[in-house]
Amino acid sequence: MIETRLTQRFGLTYPVLNAPMALVAGGALAGAVSRAGGLGLIGGGYAGTLGAEPNLAAEFERAGGSRVGVGFITWALAQAPSQIDHALALKPACVFLSFGDPGPFAARIHAAGVPLICQVQTLGQVDAAVAAGATALVAQGTEAGGHGGARASFSLIPEVADHLARTSPETLLLAAGGIADGRGLAAALMLGAEGVVVGTRLWAADEALTPAAAVARAIAGTGDDTVRTRAVDALRGVAWPREFSFRIMRNRLTETWAGRESEALANPGLLRADYEAARSRADLDMVATVAGEAIGLVHARGPAASIVANLVDEAELCLVGGAQAVKT
Amino acid sequence: MIETRLTQRFGLTYPVLNAPMALVAGGALAGAVSRAGGLGLIGGGYAGTLGAEPNLAAEFERAGGSRVGVGFITWALAQAPSQIDHALALKPACVFLSFGDPGPFAARIHAAGVPLICQVQTLGQVDAAVAAGATALVAQGTEAGGHGGARASFSLIPEVADHLARTSPETLLLAAGGIADGRGLAAALMLGAEGVVVGTRLWAADEALTPAAAVARAIAGTGDDTVRTRAVDALRGVAWPREFSFRIMRNRLTETWAGRESEALANPGLLRADYEAARSRADLDMVATVAGEAIGLVHARGPAASIVANLVDEAELCLVGGAQAVKT
Repeated sequence: MIETRLTQRFGLTYPVLNAPMALVAGGALAGAVSRAGGLGLIGGGYAGTLGAEPNLAAEFERAGGSRVGVGFITWALAQAPSQIDHALALKPACVFLSFGDPGPFAARIHAAGVPLICQVQTLGQVDAAVAAGATALVAQGTEAGGHGGARASFSLIPEVADHLARTSPETLLLAAGGIADGRGLAAALMLGAEGVVVGTRLWAADEALTPAAAVARAIAGTGDDTVRTRAVDALRGVAWPREFSFRIMRNRLTETWAGRESEALANPGLLRADYEAARSRADLDMVATVAGEAIGLVHARGPAASIVANLVDEAELCLVGGAQAVKT
Repeated sequence: MIETRLTQRFGLTYPVLNAPMALVAGGALAGAVSRAGGLGLIGGGYAGTLGAEPNLAAEFERAGGSRVGVGFITWALAQAPSQIDHALALKPACVFLSFGDPGPFAARIHAAGVPLICQVQTLGQVDAAVAAGATALVAQGTEAGGHGGARASFSLIPEVADHLARTSPETLLLAAGGIADGRGLAAALMLGAEGVVVGTRLWAADEALTPAAAVARAIAGTGDDTVRTRAVDALRGVAWPREFSFRIMRNRLTETWAGRESEALANPGLLRADYEAARSRADLDMVATVAGEAIGLVHARGPAASIVANLVDEAELCLVGGAQAVKT
């Protein structure tokens, strides 16, 4: 096992969470991650504000009695705030909020005795998350799949670690973005994180709700084949705040709109109907295949239990081997 | 000491190079890094094609007899290819080529018996560097200051490591981008690198040729205050290939042109005269202050010897501490 303050505080064997990926991380994935010794999370996504989102109660059932948490996109939750009460009634192991101000939800989460985990993409977002009483922060680097910011993990993690050490040393720090194997877990620990959030690698787990065609397309590519864009959200008419962008596999849509972000932002919803039609026929030249740069480290699907076990075994080897490079 | 294949192959005490930063890494910095146990590099920059560049022979003198290498911007060197012969006549410890095809220079470098180090920003650039006979590759993440690409270090390093393990296992791998302290060195080793190239932290070394006002401005900021842009090179009329962008501190110029990259690219040299005038009056609201995201980890200038010693001491502590987190 790998022991950190995270494993101690949450009673885990391994300091590994799955990202609460919307429409991907259901109860089957979250339950499998928790049973593997990590902490599984169900993706609450847009909190029902976009339609086609999970029945949280049913997904908690699918976790098979394992202790799992739930995550939401904070700015969307703000449009459907009662969803946090529904989620808390399911007794989640934690609530994981990303992309927006967690403040308005903090009191209800704390009153329920549920730990709050807040994901940040910049140093500038840290103080608000600490003020909301987060038990743990997640520093998410730009290499992450799906929505995120512009800062990369390598310096964001230690910079947030230093800031927390000065201002709130009890707050735990996790890393997200670019972590698909044990090398990434070991590196994140070196940089000052106490655990990791794994997206892309578990997006391709057998238990994930990811369409098979999307996984096949993504694992055929390399990490060079993703792009961060604001154009796609604008064109499909999903009103993401300006500071967040969407990392997806390059396709015909991203290439057509490359370098035309201002034009896309000026025409919100321009391709809404086309995008929905493409979704219904699973046309991945138009519909986003959501994966991070770490897709270049993913070569096959597989059960979450093996993914977590392999990741941790490799991290242990890296950590032990690293110490042996130090010669006295 | 920290032993890797890099330290063995180059006879170093520590697996640390300074980035050959144009107009910043002169002989004083390179010599100090080599005397501190790493490998110092003099920045040959645009190989004289932009004017105002170093007299390489004088900078090699300033290294004070220490064994140092030299780096060039490859696409610029292609416009002044005789510069590689001048550089090789100075008997550099290595030649470090970034941003362009190293192939045309490889034969002369090998004939001189000088090791070639090639920096790459994508997986897709690796095969050309291997084909050029590089002794070592540097995987440079987008978090780096100055020119670079879009991929971040966290997954680029292990993906390149895996590719080299399959195709050219003798080729060494270094990491660049976001590494300013021992945590970064330790993390890079976990990800599969065998050494690191440090830019921003040594950009702020006492021996660097960096203007004091630029360092003061940069260290007053955080890692949130840099931006990667193609607009500035276009506006100042420096013809960088499309795939590379410039990471600098945000200032009035970057904010004015944010989101207007296509417009800037369509008007090359639009602000050339204004930019030169601003440079002559050291107006940092217009002229670029070149720093990477790791500037948030840099809080003061200091001698290169202390920077390298502290970085290595911290890395050793991280590596030993990481192994202790593994419980059997």
